[in-house]
Amino acid sequence: MLIGVLGGMGPLATVDLLQKIIEETPAARDQDHVPVVAWNVPQIPDRQRALAGTGESPLPALLAAVSQLNRLSVSHIVIPCNTAHHWFDDLAAASAAPLIHIADATLACVKSVVKNQGTELQKIGLIATHGTLAAGWYQQRFAALGGETLVPDEQEMTTFFVPGCYAVKRGELHQGGLLLDRLAQRLVDRGAQWLVLACTEVPPALTAVNSPYLDISFDATRALAQACVQEWQRSDNA
Amino acid sequence: MLIGVLGGMGPLATVDLLQKIIEETPAARDQDHVPVVAWNVPQIPDRQRALAGTGESPLPALLAAVSQLNRLSVSHIVIPCNTAHHWFDDLAAASAAPLIHIADATLACVKSVVKNQGTELQKIGLIATHGTLAAGWYQQRFAALGGETLVPDEQEMTTFFVPGCYAVKRGELHQGGLLLDRLAQRLVDRGAQWLVLACTEVPPALTAVNSPYLDISFDATRALAQACVQEWQRSDNA
Repeated sequence: MLIGVLGGMGPLATVDLLQKIIEETPAARDQDHVPVVAWNVPQIPDRQRALAGTGESPLPALLAAVSQLNRLSVSHIVIPCNTAHHWFDDLAAASAAPLIHIADATLACVKSVVKNQGTELQKIGLIATHGTLAAGWYQQRFAALGGETLVPDEQEMTTFFVPGCYAVKRGELHQGGLLLDRLAQRLVDRGAQWLVLACTEVPPALTAVNSPYLDISFDATRALAQACVQEWQRSDNA
Repeated sequence: MLIGVLGGMGPLATVDLLQKIIEETPAARDQDHVPVVAWNVPQIPDRQRALAGTGESPLPALLAAVSQLNRLSVSHIVIPCNTAHHWFDDLAAASAAPLIHIADATLACVKSVVKNQGTELQKIGLIATHGTLAAGWYQQRFAALGGETLVPDEQEMTTFFVPGCYAVKRGELHQGGLLLDRLAQRLVDRGAQWLVLACTEVPPALTAVNSPYLDISFDATRALAQACVQEWQRSDNA
């Protein structure tokens, strides 16, 4: 059992996943923690620009990373970047190790909370890149649970999401957090009861500004971390 | 250029190094960040117990990790665990990629600060495991700069250092931080003008309690991160 992390998109989101894997693991000593190898090599063409038709495809770099992780005989691969899941099927086809889809991990987390609280899933605000919004992974899964998805409008994407996301990539977490907090507020004002943070740059930024919206948010990165811990607990080694 | 991190000792110290590499890198976008692959596999026999003669040697697991990192053609290897440097020469001999010694990285940082402040290096309090204290890496380097090293006494090691360090490994950062902050206070009370945090579990713990002693501390993990960033800036790829 060895979790392979195809990271670097951005590097801080990868560190955030590694941190959350540790936080989610019940451990009394070093050796109880999940074994992970993280490929945190950010020299991968920009995913948002590729999908917008303004940049080269990241697929060759992603395939090279999958190949490197498989050389280490990883048992599973996770990708702490929602947008990169656009190439999920190509990567899964090229990998001996199975890939865990971040939207599946997030849905498992949403289902569990909804079940435990005995509430119905109603309006969910989705914070994600244009690429992730267009792909429909989250909207389809929420609809199957009877939930309705609210997405940012184009003006909100341009004013809040895109500059917030790229601020995180420059290390300006506070600045990014202020922008993304305002986007969260807009979705809540329009009736969102829950938010799903479906871009891995978002949770560190909202945390940096201590956003009150974190309390009603599902964090896709934390959900992916929980999926890794569950695989570790299921394995013979744990 | 690809930094290989031989991590997992503990896993949180590895994440702390990755975070500090990002913080120390001037970057305007993902692709400007240092490419890193982190072997964060904590199933390595306890280093402190091995050196105390009460546990098995971690050397075979460390050599296996070095071999895995070399399979990925890393250009340098760093180890965010001071105590594991006991096996540094064996690992360096087995590695095609050169290893950067954490005490060398820390000394470069100390030298630079001393030079910039125009002060003399006088009494330095050293916070480290028994194994690191006994090895003398730091004391010898400080003496060469004219500095005198203060180390914790055996009672302080047993009361503060060892339980503080193992609390971090259990994820109890606050509890660990309180203990390690008291150790820092003891060394300052005995005349230390600077502290060197030469165990990678210590900086996250002191940060968790917002210890005032961080202001007079050299953080070996951050120094190692700076050494990685310098290698990246020196390379053609940066």
